[in-house]
Amino acid sequence: MEEENKGIEELIEELQSYIRELKFGQIKEILVEMNPADLAILLGEVSDEDLPILFRILPKELAAETFVEMDGDEQELLISAFSDRELWEVMDMMHVDDAVDVIEEMPAGVVKRILRHTDPETRKSINEILRYPKDSAGSIMTTEYVDLKKHMTVSEAFDRIRRIGCDKETIYNCYVTDENRRLQGLVTVKELFLENYNETIENIMETNVIYTNTLDDQEDVARMFDKYGFMAIPVVDNEKRLVGIVTFDDAMDVIREENTEDFSKMAAITPSDETYLKTPVWVHAKNRIMWLLFLMLSATITGSIIEHYESAFQAIPLLVAFVPMLMGTGGNCGSQSSTMIIRGLALGEIRFKDFFRVIYKELRIAVIVGILLAVANTIRIYIMYPGENPLFLALITGISLIGTVILAKCMGCVLPMLAKKCGLDPALMAAPVLSTILDTCSVTIFFNVAVWIISIY
Amino acid sequence: MEEENKGIEELIEELQSYIRELKFGQIKEILVEMNPADLAILLGEVSDEDLPILFRILPKELAAETFVEMDGDEQELLISAFSDRELWEVMDMMHVDDAVDVIEEMPAGVVKRILRHTDPETRKSINEILRYPKDSAGSIMTTEYVDLKKHMTVSEAFDRIRRIGCDKETIYNCYVTDENRRLQGLVTVKELFLENYNETIENIMETNVIYTNTLDDQEDVARMFDKYGFMAIPVVDNEKRLVGIVTFDDAMDVIREENTEDFSKMAAITPSDETYLKTPVWVHAKNRIMWLLFLMLSATITGSIIEHYESAFQAIPLLVAFVPMLMGTGGNCGSQSSTMIIRGLALGEIRFKDFFRVIYKELRIAVIVGILLAVANTIRIYIMYPGENPLFLALITGISLIGTVILAKCMGCVLPMLAKKCGLDPALMAAPVLSTILDTCSVTIFFNVAVWIISIY
Repeated sequence: MEEENKGIEELIEELQSYIRELKFGQIKEILVEMNPADLAILLGEVSDEDLPILFRILPKELAAETFVEMDGDEQELLISAFSDRELWEVMDMMHVDDAVDVIEEMPAGVVKRILRHTDPETRKSINEILRYPKDSAGSIMTTEYVDLKKHMTVSEAFDRIRRIGCDKETIYNCYVTDENRRLQGLVTVKELFLENYNETIENIMETNVIYTNTLDDQEDVARMFDKYGFMAIPVVDNEKRLVGIVTFDDAMDVIREENTEDFSKMAAITPSDETYLKTPVWVHAKNRIMWLLFLMLSATITGSIIEHYESAFQAIPLLVAFVPMLMGTGGNCGSQSSTMIIRGLALGEIRFKDFFRVIYKELRIAVIVGILLAVANTIRIYIMYPGENPLFLALITGISLIGTVILAKCMGCVLPMLAKKCGLDPALMAAPVLSTILDTCSVTIFFNVAVWIISIY
Repeated sequence: MEEENKGIEELIEELQSYIRELKFGQIKEILVEMNPADLAILLGEVSDEDLPILFRILPKELAAETFVEMDGDEQELLISAFSDRELWEVMDMMHVDDAVDVIEEMPAGVVKRILRHTDPETRKSINEILRYPKDSAGSIMTTEYVDLKKHMTVSEAFDRIRRIGCDKETIYNCYVTDENRRLQGLVTVKELFLENYNETIENIMETNVIYTNTLDDQEDVARMFDKYGFMAIPVVDNEKRLVGIVTFDDAMDVIREENTEDFSKMAAITPSDETYLKTPVWVHAKNRIMWLLFLMLSATITGSIIEHYESAFQAIPLLVAFVPMLMGTGGNCGSQSSTMIIRGLALGEIRFKDFFRVIYKELRIAVIVGILLAVANTIRIYIMYPGENPLFLALITGISLIGTVILAKCMGCVLPMLAKKCGLDPALMAAPVLSTILDTCSVTIFFNVAVWIISIY
C-alpha cells in the first residue's frame, strides 16, 4: 500500500537517468500510471531543474490534478517557469475551490498573473470565494455544482448532468433551485437511477435539505459531514440563495487541520499551516518561545510560594522531596480532565449546558482517584521511610494529594468550558497552562497542610 | 445550523404530549422531516418507554437508518422490544457494515437472535466481516458494492446499476472484476455519464486502482482517503480478489476515533470507545488511575535526587524556589517537541528515515529557545533578587535552563520515534511520561550545575 513511498528514491534516480538520456517517452509511461497525490509527493522530491521538465511531460488533466496537490513552494516555482499559455491551461483544468487554495498560497504578484490568465467567469467565482473570511464555509466551498429545476423530468435531469457535469467537482448530489437561486431541494443521482424517466424532480426531491451558511465556521461544517455522512453540503447566503457546495474531501482537510491545530495549542505551540519538516527552524522557535516565556515567568509564582515556606522545609528538609511528586500528579490529573473536556467540546459531545453534570462527574472521579493515590503513597512512605515518622509524612502528603487531585480535576473541566463560553479556544486551557496554575495551587496546599499538621502534631 | 439541538427539550415535550393524546399522525409528521442522525440524538434523550413507541411510528427505511445511528444501549433496548418480524425488517433494510457495527455492540444472546432473523446471504457477509481483526480494513468494509465486467457496454452497466444499485451503500464507484472476482479496474458513474452508451467498460476503466488489503490497519486506510480524496477504496484479499469496499464516511469515523485515542493516550488516559458523558464515573477512574499511579511512583526518583542534594539547598535555600520553573520549562519544551513529532508520525509526514534530520532540527530550535529563556531568566533574577548575588543565581539557573531545554527537545523527538520503531504507539511518549523523565533530568542537571558553580565561585 505504501510501496510508492518506499521506492521513491530509486524512482527519482530512474527518472533522472531518463531525463539525461532524453527518454521522455519512458518517463511519461511511468508518470501517467501514478495517482496525482503520489505524483505530487514525487515531484516534491526532485530537483528544481527537473521539476518543470517532468511536469510538462504530464497529460493536461493529470498535470492540473497534480498541481493542486503540490506544496506552495513548488507551485510557485512551476508558475514562474510556465508560459502564459501553460498557466492558462492549468488554471482552466482546475476546480474553482482548488484554484482558490493555490492563490491563497501565492505572493501578490503571482496572484495577479494567475488571475490575468483565468477566464472571466472563473475569475469572478475565485474573487467571490476569496471574499469570505478565512475558516468560513464560504472560503472552502466550490461554486461548481449541478443545479436542477423542480419541473424537470428525470430524463431531462440526466441530460443536464451529462451536459454540464464534466466541469463539476461532484455530480452525485444535485440541488434544486428556484428562479431566484433559492435552495428548494436535493436529489441524488442514485435516486434518479431508481426512478422512472418521466417522473418530475419535484416529486422525488428531498425538501428538508441540511445546509450551511457562507459565514459558518468551517469546523462546524466539517462536523456536519462527520455527523451525517454526506458527500456534499450546500452553502447558502443570508437570503437562502445557493452559492456553492462543500465536498467531503475538503471537510477531511479541515478536520485534519483543526486536529493538528488543537494538538499544537494543547502543547503550547502557536499553530502553523506547514508540516513539521517544511517549517524552518526559526519559525518553530518563534511558534514555541512566547508560550515558554509566559509559562516560565508564571512558574516564578510557585517558586515564591516555596520561598515563603522556607522555614517549613528548613525544619523538615524531606518535605521538599515530595514537591515533584505532588506537582506532577496535580498536572497529570488536570491534564487528563482538560483533555477529555477539550476533545468532547471539539466534537460537540459536551456542551456548556452540561457544565454542572461534568463538574459533578469529575468531582466523583477525583475522590476515587485521590484516595487510591493517597493509599499507594502511604504504602510507599512506610516502605521508604520507616524510620522518619511515616504516619506524619503520610498524613501531610496524603491529605495534600487528595486536595490537589480534586482541585486539578475540577479546574481541568471548568477552565476549558469557561474558555469556550468566553469565546476563547478551549484548547488553550490544556496541560501547559493548567499545570502552571496547578503547580502553584498544589505547593500552596502542601505547605499549608504541612504547617497545620506540624502544629497539631 | 444547530437549531435542531437547541430545541430538543421543547421538541421532546411536544412529542410526549402527542403520545399522551395518542396523536400519532402529528408525531409522524414531525419525525419524517428529520435526518436519521438528528433523530437518533432525539431518541437518545426520550424515556425508555417512549423510545419504542416513537421508533415504531417511523417509516421502515428511516427507521433502519436511524437505528444505525443510535447508541448501543438504545439499540439493545429496541431489539428487546421488537417482535421477530420487526427485527427482520430493520435488519433487512440495513447495510452489511452497519449491521456488523450493531452486532459488535450487542451481548452474545442478542447477537444470536439478530443473526437468526437475518436472511442467509446477509448473515454470511456479516460473519465474514466479523472474522477480520478489530481495526483492520476488513472489519470496517461493506460487502455491498456494484461490480461490472469489462466486456459490458456503458448502457449495460447503467442497466446493472439500476437493477442492483438500490441495496448498495454507494453506486458511484463501480469495480470491474474478472470471473475469479479479481479486481481489474474502476469506473465512476461520472465517467459513465460522459461516455457513449455503446462504449465498452474495458476502454474507459481506470486500471491502476489504488486498493487496500483486508488486513491493513484501518488507520492507514483512513489516511489513504485523506490523501487521495476518494469516495471509496476497494478491499482485496491476498489473492487480489475483491471482497468489499470502505466508504469515506466510515473513514471519517476512523479518523475521529483514532484522533480521540491519540488525545487520550497523550494525556495518560486508557482510551475508551464511549463518549465522555456516557462513560460511568468508575470507568473514567479506572482509565486514569493506572497511569497516575505509575507516574506518581516514578516521580519518587526526582524526589530522591532532591533529597540527595539536601546539603546544597540547605546552604542556599533559594535554590529550591527555582525547581518548579526549571521542571515546568523542561516539561513544556519536551511536550512541544513530542507533540509535533507524534502528530507528524500519525499523519505520515514524518518517517523513521527522518530521524537525524528531526534531531538536528530540534537541536537548533533548542539552542535558540534555551538561550532566549536564559536571558529572560537573568533579567528576572536581576529584578527580583538584586541583593542576593544575582550573577551567581543567573549562572546556575541559566546554564541549567539551556541544558534542560536541549535535553527536553531531543528526548521529545527521540522517544516517540523510537517507540514507533519498536512497534509501540508514539502517543505514549507524550507530555505525562516525558515530563516525569525530564523532571528527574532537570533536577539532576540543576543541582550538579549548582554544586559546580558553588565550587568554582
